[in-house]
Amino acid sequence: MEGEAISALCTPALVVDVDKVKRNAQRMIERCQELGVQLRPHMKTHKTLECADIMTGGSRRCIVVSTLAEACFYADHGFDDILYAYSLPFDKLERCAALSERLDLFQVLLDHPQALEQLKKRPLRNGRPWHVWLKLDCGNGRAGVLHSEPEALRLAQAITETKGVELTGVYAHCGNTYNCRGVEQIQAVAQETTTFTLQFMEKLKAVGITCKSSIGSTPSCSHPVKDMAQLSEVHPGNYGFYDVQQSVIGSCSLEDVAVRVLTRVIGHCPHRNQLLIDCGWTGLSLDGAGKLPTGYAMIEGHPDLKLLSMTQEHGRVEPISGPLDYSKYPLGSLLTLIPYHSCATAMMHPVYHVHSEGRLLGKWTPTRGW
Amino acid sequence: MEGEAISALCTPALVVDVDKVKRNAQRMIERCQELGVQLRPHMKTHKTLECADIMTGGSRRCIVVSTLAEACFYADHGFDDILYAYSLPFDKLERCAALSERLDLFQVLLDHPQALEQLKKRPLRNGRPWHVWLKLDCGNGRAGVLHSEPEALRLAQAITETKGVELTGVYAHCGNTYNCRGVEQIQAVAQETTTFTLQFMEKLKAVGITCKSSIGSTPSCSHPVKDMAQLSEVHPGNYGFYDVQQSVIGSCSLEDVAVRVLTRVIGHCPHRNQLLIDCGWTGLSLDGAGKLPTGYAMIEGHPDLKLLSMTQEHGRVEPISGPLDYSKYPLGSLLTLIPYHSCATAMMHPVYHVHSEGRLLGKWTPTRGW
Repeated sequence: MEGEAISALCTPALVVDVDKVKRNAQRMIERCQELGVQLRPHMKTHKTLECADIMTGGSRRCIVVSTLAEACFYADHGFDDILYAYSLPFDKLERCAALSERLDLFQVLLDHPQALEQLKKRPLRNGRPWHVWLKLDCGNGRAGVLHSEPEALRLAQAITETKGVELTGVYAHCGNTYNCRGVEQIQAVAQETTTFTLQFMEKLKAVGITCKSSIGSTPSCSHPVKDMAQLSEVHPGNYGFYDVQQSVIGSCSLEDVAVRVLTRVIGHCPHRNQLLIDCGWTGLSLDGAGKLPTGYAMIEGHPDLKLLSMTQEHGRVEPISGPLDYSKYPLGSLLTLIPYHSCATAMMHPVYHVHSEGRLLGKWTPTRGW
Repeated sequence: MEGEAISALCTPALVVDVDKVKRNAQRMIERCQELGVQLRPHMKTHKTLECADIMTGGSRRCIVVSTLAEACFYADHGFDDILYAYSLPFDKLERCAALSERLDLFQVLLDHPQALEQLKKRPLRNGRPWHVWLKLDCGNGRAGVLHSEPEALRLAQAITETKGVELTGVYAHCGNTYNCRGVEQIQAVAQETTTFTLQFMEKLKAVGITCKSSIGSTPSCSHPVKDMAQLSEVHPGNYGFYDVQQSVIGSCSLEDVAVRVLTRVIGHCPHRNQLLIDCGWTGLSLDGAGKLPTGYAMIEGHPDLKLLSMTQEHGRVEPISGPLDYSKYPLGSLLTLIPYHSCATAMMHPVYHVHSEGRLLGKWTPTRGW
């Protein structure tokens, strides 16, 4: 299919505009160079080699992953300096050890003294240390030890004092930027997360500990605040693709969104004033329910339409108001969905169709599982 | 891992109790034998060879699929008599033709005169006919021509009058049983769908047309009404696995649900009265939002817990009321999620771990894509 128009694809199909991915990636690389911080891009949104190459500028170094399946996939393909940024999973300790012994630099993350105990029980071979990031919760409210609690400092000290374990860095995810609307709010959260992280670094310094620091989220790294220059690294991920959610938050414009789901009209239902399309939740995911006036996605070029509901392989589309003009949507005609959340949409597709200016260049195949 | 306990699995993991699948499948086979209708099981929930073998009683014949990827997958593995029960997708006409020319019996479905025109344009080779089911909407409100509209009869007549095309049957999906609560409501919808379908068969007979008839949905086929004996076929699918939704509808008991997602506690968050688990929406799907007092799933053996929210790889669990007793949920300990919608949960997993009485027997690998 290479060289053909994307309209030749069977639907539903996830299409990736590689020029936009490259532009988004390049902008983030430049933004981090200007700030003087190391970019460690997160792979969780796309989970492909090709997009990882674009996001690392071809270095295949310095990435972050959300699953061990990703870590193994990238390690198997020559990537190194991989941070598995997930509260150390006790059931996967041996797999983490194997990666640590195999790669130049495989890094794990923890947020509890019991996780440190697990590492102690499984020293790495050949005198290698476990490279450990301490996960701080700076207001995101998910994983991590609370930055303000004395136990955070105690845990950092315990890591540095443990034989066979090194404290590589302090890691905070500012996922609370996802509640923001507009640059000002994003930067307020970015500032808060940065301040809390840097305050914690000061506390570490006061007890003689130095290590790296990293914060991340696509909104904060798309609109960094000056103080982020004092961090060692940032770790955004979604920005390669972006999505409607990021445009609503204010991370990007809709123009920057690099992914679409192509779908076709497969039914006219005038008695319900609806169209049926061949994209259900298997092609888009259910993420975004209730978030947009246009329903589960935006339909490109048709701001008057709403993706009302989906079942496994069907989507129901209706006008936001008034009667549907069916002559505009013949059976078999294409509609283009801009996903609300590209991480969730990409996850549903075993293959992504990559194009430049609407001409197919090839396929990217993501890894899956854990 | 064969022979090991399911608790040895890395999490999140989809586990399938093969004894329950066999029991669910056998009950449906017997129910259909008693009724005297042909069972044509739908593959969309599991999409695996092994479960298809169980559901077809090993015949590898007479199945229904939701995607052409499934059709090709089953055809490649010796299955035949396959009904692709999806409003004829114009972009996939040539792939449908190839399957029609390759298999003994590949069947398509349509609900619009324009789809019939597509078939006319692509006659099958070697004098083979297109085997076509007419999709009726008997109140479900998704695909299909309305049973009560004169155009339904006209379309059936047009199919029979078209050279190279045969009207194989009339097909109705009673997905509106998913709004039911209890056997009485399920049977009311099953009765209505059956009545409308049989009335349409009478209309066909009056103009000299005879063909098969089929209705389906797991609720209706789990509690069939007598008149369903007058149909040729039924086509339920979810019943191999069942799920919490089906138990809420009244199709099955919770005991019958054959699938679970195993997950582990990866965080204690006493300041939020929450646990973190290693199952996010990649392991469960977002289906079921707002449907259950226990959140996105039921947590087996812990009716007091709620799966409040999920991000990509994290789930937040809190007590339905009162403070959480963390001593009951040590880090690394297993929790077992009963999925709200097994079709959606299974879709998220590249492999299913199959067990009998908690001992692993092997893996089933589903097909994906379209």
